[in-house]
Amino acid sequence: MNFKNLLAERTSVMGASAIREILKVVSEPGMVSLAGGIPAPQSFPMSIISELTEKVISKYASGAFQYDLTEGFRPLQEQLSIFLAERGIKAEPDEINISSGSQGVLDGMAKILISKGDKIAVEAPTYLGAISAFNPYQPEYVRMDTDDYGLIPESLDSILSEHSIKFIYLVPTFQNPTGRTIPMERREKIAEIIIKRQALLVEDDPYSALRYQGNYVPSIKTLAPENVVYVSTLSKIFAPGLRIGFFTAPELIRKWLVLVKQGTDLHTSTFNQALAAEYLEGGYLKKHLPTILKLYKPKQKAMINAIDQYFPKGYKCSPSEGGMFLWIEGPKGIDMEKIYFKALKRKVAFVPGKFFYTKAGEGLATMRLNYTMSDESTINKAIKVLGDIIEG
Amino acid sequence: MNFKNLLAERTSVMGASAIREILKVVSEPGMVSLAGGIPAPQSFPMSIISELTEKVISKYASGAFQYDLTEGFRPLQEQLSIFLAERGIKAEPDEINISSGSQGVLDGMAKILISKGDKIAVEAPTYLGAISAFNPYQPEYVRMDTDDYGLIPESLDSILSEHSIKFIYLVPTFQNPTGRTIPMERREKIAEIIIKRQALLVEDDPYSALRYQGNYVPSIKTLAPENVVYVSTLSKIFAPGLRIGFFTAPELIRKWLVLVKQGTDLHTSTFNQALAAEYLEGGYLKKHLPTILKLYKPKQKAMINAIDQYFPKGYKCSPSEGGMFLWIEGPKGIDMEKIYFKALKRKVAFVPGKFFYTKAGEGLATMRLNYTMSDESTINKAIKVLGDIIEG
Repeated sequence: MNFKNLLAERTSVMGASAIREILKVVSEPGMVSLAGGIPAPQSFPMSIISELTEKVISKYASGAFQYDLTEGFRPLQEQLSIFLAERGIKAEPDEINISSGSQGVLDGMAKILISKGDKIAVEAPTYLGAISAFNPYQPEYVRMDTDDYGLIPESLDSILSEHSIKFIYLVPTFQNPTGRTIPMERREKIAEIIIKRQALLVEDDPYSALRYQGNYVPSIKTLAPENVVYVSTLSKIFAPGLRIGFFTAPELIRKWLVLVKQGTDLHTSTFNQALAAEYLEGGYLKKHLPTILKLYKPKQKAMINAIDQYFPKGYKCSPSEGGMFLWIEGPKGIDMEKIYFKALKRKVAFVPGKFFYTKAGEGLATMRLNYTMSDESTINKAIKVLGDIIEG
Repeated sequence: MNFKNLLAERTSVMGASAIREILKVVSEPGMVSLAGGIPAPQSFPMSIISELTEKVISKYASGAFQYDLTEGFRPLQEQLSIFLAERGIKAEPDEINISSGSQGVLDGMAKILISKGDKIAVEAPTYLGAISAFNPYQPEYVRMDTDDYGLIPESLDSILSEHSIKFIYLVPTFQNPTGRTIPMERREKIAEIIIKRQALLVEDDPYSALRYQGNYVPSIKTLAPENVVYVSTLSKIFAPGLRIGFFTAPELIRKWLVLVKQGTDLHTSTFNQALAAEYLEGGYLKKHLPTILKLYKPKQKAMINAIDQYFPKGYKCSPSEGGMFLWIEGPKGIDMEKIYFKALKRKVAFVPGKFFYTKAGEGLATMRLNYTMSDESTINKAIKVLGDIIEG
């Protein structure tokens, strides 16, 4: 039986993801992967995880295993209200909702806002997972210019003046794929522009807690609260396998996001939400976060140093003070996918940067390097291999 | 700021769910709710839950907390392959995928198959959660006739001959809302029809393990494996708060379901999947299931007896051998919503049956009664109250 003729129009235009194929290769034995975007298992608070589960079971009993409201597990909403206040974001527990990873919010945003052909403004390059969440709703992407300091506000302003944009999607801090952070002055300009143009911004903030140097930069949400859907996750500071994302948004948007989530998965795992609530309420996150930073900081440093040492002139690494990635831009004419295939033969994997662009032909000379999954010495050796290949 | 003008066409046609408002009332203090569709917390295996979490933590360590494949946590896929074999369904671990509740598959099915105006054939009445999963994709519903033995095969056949149907949606065993089960002879006819017409059937099977009397009836999947997307869940036999659903489907459909799931939530909670794997592998389900049946069987009996005793002639209860619901059909002209509001004043809640129909004006004289959440004596009293109100 062949059901191909049954597929919806949206499906027939989706096509298999090339990067998915790339990431499959990565798990081959002996491969040093700088390709993934996943936290080191050593960053998980394994030493307290039994304590947490026991606390949750004794505190919430069967309540942690029952169906729950789509909005979120109340004790977690309460804890996140305190957590967000520390980031300068004012949101009552009722105004914070839980999602199945931040991915769930991205799917929801496109579901409630995008009719076929509607426009979303995205950075070039942008986060691939967002694109895969948005694609089924058949948007048109309008690319915004970026430099080493992320989104260029003038590009946003001119796009909003020329196009009817349903929403803007940004990862302002330690962006995936570039590791870049939009500085405060630009954030202020961006806030000003979206308020002036009455635009809606999705501010995706998975990484801001992973800062290894420099000073905290407040979210755009704090500057334009009425125009920003602020999305974050515990995946990078607790455990990604628990799939706990959260968001706070202008009320109309928030209510629709909850309503469509009801149709998608009813609610996010109660047990995992209870674990997250206990992780925050018991002060475990505060105690554990320095361990995560101590783990990643030398890895990032090792990678920056190795790039400096082994990559030829003309290969520029974007400045980055945190997160999980570094971004390399090679000289014009370089095809990073060719280097990728050569690297695979020498058992080193990364992601060619072109996959993070919505427009074909862009980013051919770029690459994304992840440093959270390998130790410093492995990072050093892998970058040396890449340097060798690049030098030819 | 008002973002109403930004909503997609699909959203503006969705509207708030009336039943959602109804279910909110239900949680008021002192209310006896026969309205919900949730398992009794006493049915959860709380006495072994600590043991399970400890086993998972020691067995899988950080692996249970890391990102995992969208397809599913391998040990759970393996266990479900054995579990499905016991239901007569042949599926290799690779052919079984995990979803965030069965809700996730329903969303996925509509996402990959439904363009605006495409047709889905549903029973009248049908499961409301499926409708809320399908609605955002703007299908047209074609209603199929049912009687006390569920879907009438001839209705299916004539609909498939008249309409171009993307898929058929059925809950063949202990249906929600009616508690009805399609008998074997009808299943054979249904299988024959969908094979003959090359149609795709979504067989939603959340309740078949909850049988209190009578004999097991094999799934339609066993009769037409190439035409059926078989969807089930551990929500009713483990814990719904863990959000573990699963499915096996014709390959093309299965692959697309996995692909769109990647955009929706990346994957279902690894930790919860590991708990489910251990629950099955350790033989806990087999040990625990009799406890669940022993808990529910007398509740169902108490409700059937009370209906018999307190409801006037002309109020018919559909025969049901398991699940969580009983279905009452009153005489023509009765408006069950009026009875609902009267019942609320006497602190008894149920769901007026009309909410389970896709066509306005149908099912006005029907009601759905849940018996899993109350004890026998409470059920008896609540049904007496309803009987009193109906008698006027």
